Amino acid sequence: MDLQAFQKEGHRLLDWITRYLGELERYPVLARSKPGQVRASFPSSPPGEGEPLPRILEDVERLIVPGLTHWNHPGFFAYFSISASAPGILGELLAAAFNVNGMLWKTSPVATELEAVTLDWLRQMLGLPPGLFGVIQDTASASTLVALAAAREAVPGLEARRRGLVGQARLRMYASEEAHSSVEKAGLVLGIGQEGLRKIPVDGAFRMDPAALARAIGEDRRAGWTPFAVTATVGTTSTTSIDPVPRVAEICAGEGLWLHVDAAYGGAAAVLPERRSVLAGCERADSLVMNPHKWLFVPIDLSVLYTRKPEVLRAAFSLVPDYLRTPEDAVAPNLMDYGVSLGRRFRALKLWMVLRAFGQEGIADRIREHIRLAALFRSWVEADPGFEVAAPSPFSLVCFRARFPGATPEEGDRRNEALLDAVNASGEAYLSHTKLGGRTTLRLAIGNIRTEERHVRRAWDLLREAARTGRG
Amino acid sequence: MDLQAFQKEGHRLLDWITRYLGELERYPVLARSKPGQVRASFPSSPPGEGEPLPRILEDVERLIVPGLTHWNHPGFFAYFSISASAPGILGELLAAAFNVNGMLWKTSPVATELEAVTLDWLRQMLGLPPGLFGVIQDTASASTLVALAAAREAVPGLEARRRGLVGQARLRMYASEEAHSSVEKAGLVLGIGQEGLRKIPVDGAFRMDPAALARAIGEDRRAGWTPFAVTATVGTTSTTSIDPVPRVAEICAGEGLWLHVDAAYGGAAAVLPERRSVLAGCERADSLVMNPHKWLFVPIDLSVLYTRKPEVLRAAFSLVPDYLRTPEDAVAPNLMDYGVSLGRRFRALKLWMVLRAFGQEGIADRIREHIRLAALFRSWVEADPGFEVAAPSPFSLVCFRARFPGATPEEGDRRNEALLDAVNASGEAYLSHTKLGGRTTLRLAIGNIRTEERHVRRAWDLLREAARTGRG
Repeated sequence: MDLQAFQKEGHRLLDWITRYLGELERYPVLARSKPGQVRASFPSSPPGEGEPLPRILEDVERLIVPGLTHWNHPGFFAYFSISASAPGILGELLAAAFNVNGMLWKTSPVATELEAVTLDWLRQMLGLPPGLFGVIQDTASASTLVALAAAREAVPGLEARRRGLVGQARLRMYASEEAHSSVEKAGLVLGIGQEGLRKIPVDGAFRMDPAALARAIGEDRRAGWTPFAVTATVGTTSTTSIDPVPRVAEICAGEGLWLHVDAAYGGAAAVLPERRSVLAGCERADSLVMNPHKWLFVPIDLSVLYTRKPEVLRAAFSLVPDYLRTPEDAVAPNLMDYGVSLGRRFRALKLWMVLRAFGQEGIADRIREHIRLAALFRSWVEADPGFEVAAPSPFSLVCFRARFPGATPEEGDRRNEALLDAVNASGEAYLSHTKLGGRTTLRLAIGNIRTEERHVRRAWDLLREAARTGRG
Repeated sequence: MDLQAFQKEGHRLLDWITRYLGELERYPVLARSKPGQVRASFPSSPPGEGEPLPRILEDVERLIVPGLTHWNHPGFFAYFSISASAPGILGELLAAAFNVNGMLWKTSPVATELEAVTLDWLRQMLGLPPGLFGVIQDTASASTLVALAAAREAVPGLEARRRGLVGQARLRMYASEEAHSSVEKAGLVLGIGQEGLRKIPVDGAFRMDPAALARAIGEDRRAGWTPFAVTATVGTTSTTSIDPVPRVAEICAGEGLWLHVDAAYGGAAAVLPERRSVLAGCERADSLVMNPHKWLFVPIDLSVLYTRKPEVLRAAFSLVPDYLRTPEDAVAPNLMDYGVSLGRRFRALKLWMVLRAFGQEGIADRIREHIRLAALFRSWVEADPGFEVAAPSPFSLVCFRARFPGATPEEGDRRNEALLDAVNASGEAYLSHTKLGGRTTLRLAIGNIRTEERHVRRAWDLLREAARTGRG
């Protein structure tokens, strides 16, 4: 490795990144390339000889940037808007430079122990009970898979680890119709199958109906199913609705089911003392996932899985070949034992840098401001007879649609889609959509650390203008 | 985000990293901290207020570095030695700064299309057949899980996705006794269970015995099992043995089984024209995993899964909620459909930067040198009557042990363990161990981009010195 070149080009790259982050509004939020266009701009064969770093970095501007959808852009309001803050980016740089594999305690004690330190800090910030064990996974999909694998392992008499599922009891788990697809995906992977997930209806505010849950469990038991887990969501992806976790926890306790809480997005709001109640009931969960890469200014990826039952995760996953046995096995955790992947990046480092650089108050201030901006946008929608809100907004997402009086529902859907396309084509804002009650609904999600009131105002202006045009 | 602080502290951090990478030999390879010691050096509560970046970066040196096992150290010979090269580190920095989620084509076309470009480059470099579909996963454990989930989905009439495994045929898969634990872990996760994996004996060179495989499949069919997949390994973790893939592929073709090849480490050697034969037979595999983060100078994590049957991966994993449907779904792949995780970091960027900066020849030169150094070390072991080699060395790993004439096997094991501890305590080299035929065996793995002949020579001197002391 030529360290001089690394240093010199590293400085150039840092300057380039600084400029990029300072000029984000120059770029269209949503990439304008067509399928296949980016690929065609690259050679179809690998380079035979190495090339100097400066030439490669020039191509970043020329070939990479035009194909980006700029998640950093303050006008990014789609999906869940996420942010890589400065300390998070530097933490990722440092982790790449250290390049440790934290599979065993021994293979870098600080990777394992800083994970324990930061996840306990985060637990305190969220107001979760002491004694929870935390482990970092890459995404919420992985965290939920691991949690539900543990739930499966916990079924008395099943011994899924050793015996697998063939010839066993028919397992069933539950989540609301609005739960994230990762719950269903975990079911596919775990061999429970789509039929092993029963989707529970929601109320008018898109929250799981606990009475329907209790009924479903009873029906399933009578029909010969073995219920084993419920996933409740704090902040669903479509509308950020909050399932009634205290009531669901009671049902799980009564029925002996594992309660997993998906607070991947919504959990972050509990950093605000005045919003801590969003995690009410979660102290009774067997496991809970919360993603610092969503609304906590940590670069993707970093998902945290908390559990009261680490020994069950271990029972589900631990396999230690001879070549990975160490004298410290009995006294220090080896985090490879708590998930699918053996290799583990030093993800805790960026979380540590973000938590220290912002502090609890700095993080709370930004989340509070995002919630304020969403409430402001919602007030504009509510005040405009040309629009309507489509769901409650417990966090920083607003679901809404334009009204087209006299149009059929289908025609209204088409016009809302056209409106969305028009706004997204502006390059100044990017929103995404969902379906609520079968109707196309627009979503404005605030979570980007660079989003200011003027960006929300601009999105609103673009939406109104496009609606006016759509109404002809 | 305060961009000025980012820029200023980023430059300082880069200078610090440059110095760190230039002075690695100042540090002990293996961390010297005791369990709990690192954790105790951090506050037990999160900071209330934010702190300036310079203070945090000072703590990197003070609190983080002493707890690191330095995978970058040229004397790191444990497990598989890996390297984050300069272009790889800068690629990771850039990916963190862009912070895109490549779940959909639309959410950053270049994330999806550069993945296709670089994985096709890599395919050509490895001499694999055209038309293979590649997708990046985090680690080989995830790649193997995804491959075996696809194999399960491909079982005729099973419909595992919809129906799960309960009440279905008893599935069985095969891998050698020396296969990586990730194969067994995939079985646990997929609901196949440990009983659903049959471990096939190996020959004297630790390679799967294909006749034993064929017999096992026949026996299992007669006993009512449904064989469905075989995992063959090119470069096992313990000894880097190479299963006879051409013969295994023939058996799989005859029996209608999915062939997955674990070439996570060994595949990299196929970049050398003279070593391309290590992947002989792999053109017939249904899937193959190869990890650029192992021996291709890309920072952890980046694992590549190739398959001839992407439609089966999709059938096993794709779930598209309304809010993620896009008009491009029919014409451009959404890579979230080919694995567990919905969120996807822009990992292809660092691979692109490494492949361009080194070129095929630059990569081949370094791998060739690693193989040469391993052969040199092996020749020293062979020439010294105080030592013996314990397995063939088809790549850059040497398995060996010290001989203690007159000692019982158990005593010999203990003395080899003591010898290993003594060498590792030196701080100048770090080797790991395995068990071969029940006997403790030392492993010297060469893969670090900074390892030179003098480091291998120093490790050998330390080993001989420790053996002399151990013989007292």
